[in-house]
Amino acid sequence: MRPTITAFECSPDGGKGLARDTRIRWALEEVTQPYDVRFVSFAAMKEPAHLALHPFGQIPTYEEDGMAIFETGAIVLHIAETRAGLLPVDPDARARAITWMFAALNTVEPPILDLTVARIIEGDRPWAAERLPLVLDRIRARLAQLSVRLGEAEWLDDVFSAGDLLMVSVLLRLRMSGLLDEYPNLGAYVARGEARPAYRRAFEAQRAVNAPTS
Amino acid sequence: MRPTITAFECSPDGGKGLARDTRIRWALEEVTQPYDVRFVSFAAMKEPAHLALHPFGQIPTYEEDGMAIFETGAIVLHIAETRAGLLPVDPDARARAITWMFAALNTVEPPILDLTVARIIEGDRPWAAERLPLVLDRIRARLAQLSVRLGEAEWLDDVFSAGDLLMVSVLLRLRMSGLLDEYPNLGAYVARGEARPAYRRAFEAQRAVNAPTS
Repeated sequence: MRPTITAFECSPDGGKGLARDTRIRWALEEVTQPYDVRFVSFAAMKEPAHLALHPFGQIPTYEEDGMAIFETGAIVLHIAETRAGLLPVDPDARARAITWMFAALNTVEPPILDLTVARIIEGDRPWAAERLPLVLDRIRARLAQLSVRLGEAEWLDDVFSAGDLLMVSVLLRLRMSGLLDEYPNLGAYVARGEARPAYRRAFEAQRAVNAPTS
Repeated sequence: MRPTITAFECSPDGGKGLARDTRIRWALEEVTQPYDVRFVSFAAMKEPAHLALHPFGQIPTYEEDGMAIFETGAIVLHIAETRAGLLPVDPDARARAITWMFAALNTVEPPILDLTVARIIEGDRPWAAERLPLVLDRIRARLAQLSVRLGEAEWLDDVFSAGDLLMVSVLLRLRMSGLLDEYPNLGAYVARGEARPAYRRAFEAQRAVNAPTS
């Protein structure tokens, strides 16, 4: 049975691929699993029917054969566990790939999301300009460590995995900030992710909904 | 073979159990897996030997039979996948438990960690007092949603799982803030977690190192 995911009826990023359904679409494309999308308005996300699926009123969700889960990381892991292509078979390599999934979402993404707080959510506050450099430096601290670990490797642990899928997706948020340019190997890593045919299909699928005329 | 984890030589919380090795100790205690601990100083955490294990220079790490991983979520998941007691056997219930693991670390913990930024890291900045209520309200927004979902249930999805282990661990950070008192069912949920014998053993083990005289 085809899984059904949810996505924004109209993504706040206008089709740049930063909404989290893109990460799920990418994972499904990597394992060549066809899927359906149910689009949800901002109002509907806070109503009981959607809250029953996602208690925090967000997207994406994932439904398949009567099972329903939420959280992007959990969904990507579920896809990777039930289809071949996103996790190594070797148990040790598999555990390391899962480590990078958590590293992307728990260690690298939180300071990056703080940039949205600093620039958008608190962008009109009197401290916004003075606080921004602190936020940027906390991001740089993580990027510098990640850059050292990646070195000249193509992917974080030998072959492309769900860990790379999430790490590239997290780093993509920095495109507009220019911070990736300070770490050329990370910029090249993100570009390798974006060049994957599965990513291109995922990106185009969300863009067709969110920016149909561009 | 007994796994070896790393922990702070001297935890910044003085033995309150908030350092992330407590989460790993708790998971290992739940599955009754004996373990060894290697203590790491703040200086050693930034040196090559530790960075080879943990590229972001943090604790905990987990080594077992030649395999080495980091990231608390990945380590708890590895323990839960390789020993009985932390994940349901039913595939759908298992996927839901993993969903709560990611929800704890990616949706609930980030706004809670921002409290440390607001109070400690940026505590001496001129905007600290004015910014704090915004941070607290973002935490409340998540707690309110979680409180509604939990309702009067004992655990997030029927039986105790690794999802509860991480959610309780995340919420424990709020003890001093008083925020948990605003959501009595969440306070009771945390207390149920702390009352588990495995949690008590984990807590006492870290306290014996970090607050030996208290």
